[in-house]
Amino acid sequence: MYSIVSPLARIGANVTIGDFCKIYANVVVQDDCIIEDYCTLGHPPALAHDQPLVIGAGAHIRSHSVFYAGSEFGPGLRTGHRVTVREGTMAGRSLQIGTLSDFQGDCRIGDYVRTHSNVHIGQRSVVEDFVWIFPYVVLTNDPHPPSDGFLVGVRLEKYCVVSTLACVMPGVVVGSGALVAASALVSKNVPAGVVVGGVPAKVLGPVDIVKMRDESGLSAYPWRRHFHRGYPAEVVAGWVDEFADK
Amino acid sequence: MYSIVSPLARIGANVTIGDFCKIYANVVVQDDCIIEDYCTLGHPPALAHDQPLVIGAGAHIRSHSVFYAGSEFGPGLRTGHRVTVREGTMAGRSLQIGTLSDFQGDCRIGDYVRTHSNVHIGQRSVVEDFVWIFPYVVLTNDPHPPSDGFLVGVRLEKYCVVSTLACVMPGVVVGSGALVAASALVSKNVPAGVVVGGVPAKVLGPVDIVKMRDESGLSAYPWRRHFHRGYPAEVVAGWVDEFADK
Amino acid sequence: MYSIVSPLARIGANVTIGDFCKIYANVVVQDDCIIEDYCTLGHPPALAHDQPLVIGAGAHIRSHSVFYAGSEFGPGLRTGHRVTVREGTMAGRSLQIGTLSDFQGDCRIGDYVRTHSNVHIGQRSVVEDFVWIFPYVVLTNDPHPPSDGFLVGVRLEKYCVVSTLACVMPGVVVGSGALVAASALVSKNVPAGVVVGGVPAKVLGPVDIVKMRDESGLSAYPWRRHFHRGYPAEVVAGWVDEFADK
Repeated sequence: MYSIVSPLARIGANVTIGDFCKIYANVVVQDDCIIEDYCTLGHPPALAHDQPLVIGAGAHIRSHSVFYAGSEFGPGLRTGHRVTVREGTMAGRSLQIGTLSDFQGDCRIGDYVRTHSNVHIGQRSVVEDFVWIFPYVVLTNDPHPPSDGFLVGVRLEKYCVVSTLACVMPGVVVGSGALVAASALVSKNVPAGVVVGGVPAKVLGPVDIVKMRDESGLSAYPWRRHFHRGYPAEVVAGWVDEFADK
Repeated sequence: MYSIVSPLARIGANVTIGDFCKIYANVVVQDDCIIEDYCTLGHPPALAHDQPLVIGAGAHIRSHSVFYAGSEFGPGLRTGHRVTVREGTMAGRSLQIGTLSDFQGDCRIGDYVRTHSNVHIGQRSVVEDFVWIFPYVVLTNDPHPPSDGFLVGVRLEKYCVVSTLACVMPGVVVGSGALVAASALVSKNVPAGVVVGGVPAKVLGPVDIVKMRDESGLSAYPWRRHFHRGYPAEVVAGWVDEFADK
Repeated sequence: MYSIVSPLARIGANVTIGDFCKIYANVVVQDDCIIEDYCTLGHPPALAHDQPLVIGAGAHIRSHSVFYAGSEFGPGLRTGHRVTVREGTMAGRSLQIGTLSDFQGDCRIGDYVRTHSNVHIGQRSVVEDFVWIFPYVVLTNDPHPPSDGFLVGVRLEKYCVVSTLACVMPGVVVGSGALVAASALVSKNVPAGVVVGGVPAKVLGPVDIVKMRDESGLSAYPWRRHFHRGYPAEVVAGWVDEFADK
């Protein structure tokens, strides 16, 4: 009820649109999506262009969210409430965006990326496949704010994990499988497979120094050795093979 | 106007429901409540169940807030704007939830708990009576994220205070009457009655080293010695007695 | 469509009001403003009074924002989405408020102040002209929370910059042109023209130790030497003169 949906929007089969929504003309919502109440899809960008907003099949966008025109999402997007996604966000499949998260646009997001609540993704960020970002993390981009023409995004490489309230400084690369501890200020590149923490962050050791909370004595990282929930069977099978002898 | 209220929702006497609201069937709003505009009450949880949302008498829920089914609140709840409360939040009387705060559900909250803006309460948290939580605090729960089956909530004991931008690590117990300083990363249990600060947090001394900002020379903690606003007369009388000779 | 606008609200010429809005009687919106969808203007304060909300000419308020009665904004206000502004916010011209920011009211904001996303401005804050505040910064006000009658606001002096996730403690003065580094906890006054960082923050040197990200060898601060985007020509001309011989 009360939703305002442009007749020019291309809405797929088996799509549910909630109440009090507003969907602009320049929007493609593929099949089997759920759009909850009070959502805006296709908000006009500050700089007008004619790129559409494309929401891949099977998305679930929770209430009070705002997506601008000019972004694309592969299948299986899932969001919390009140997310904001600006133009130029190009994301792969099965992205999860936590409640209150704020994607500033002009960024590249891989497949199976999961952000928890209240994550801030600055422009020019690159987030590779299978990355995890926890609550209140900020990916910055301005090396000496305010500046013009100097913005450099953060790169989070495959499988890395950025913990709660960490701040990643402009241009920093967090290496594959690395772990950034909570409340860290990451001002230098992080090598693959290490854990860093502190303000400013220092290398604390290889990630395998973090042990499971059980009697196994095994390392908690790489997390893909033991955490498989929600990933497709073929991906998990590859991980099982990778660690079969370890 | 324009609100969508299920005829099966049980709405008490003298309840005001704002505009553009959505109230599902599985909701109980007791007497004398104010529900502001754009609120959702009884949002269906991800895992369907048939527990209702129960809002105790005298609540004031500010605009753009989302409460899921499956939570209960004692009388006197007050919220800011845009709060999100997931299923399984069991709260006592006179809870205050600040603007933008995000209760992830599956948590226990005592009586007279007050959270300021933008507080994140992870699942399995336990917050005892008379606790204060200030802006941008995060209570975490995953000891080696991402993990499955290892979540351990934070416990905040009676009267303790967690200051702005502090992060409390999984499973940590903050003792009764303790004070966590702003921007602290609390990775170990905090004994009752001490102040901790830093990244990682260390014990700085007993809480009574923090003095009042006046000429009295008195300690600012325990705060219940001097701060009584908004508590019932019988509670305050007990506190006055407790400190009568000190 | 569906907006609820009091006939007593004073709406200027060439004002666009979005859908699903609510505008109370005690509101003045001057000429040439854009109010996006789901916004509330003139929300009644907790303590009733009869001060209006005055939105100066040329404002652009993005969707899902809430402004209370009892605040005033000079011309050229621009906001992100979901901002909350409480009563007693007195702001000059060309204020920018980032998405999710939370102005607690009872504060003074100068001209050309720019806040990025998710900034928290505590009551009694004073923010002077040309100040920049970056994401997730909190300006606090309670020296020993919870307290009554002891609140002391932060003062940010002209041209200073507060970086991402910094926390400024109650009563602290950040001097003119100073730079607060990301994730800093600022517990002491910051002299004009220095950069501070860390938890707790220490002076790292004069701001001119931060160099431009180019081959010039020039300092990045004072930022007004090189950053002019969005300021009026006469202001920029003054800055150009100021640095003409440097």
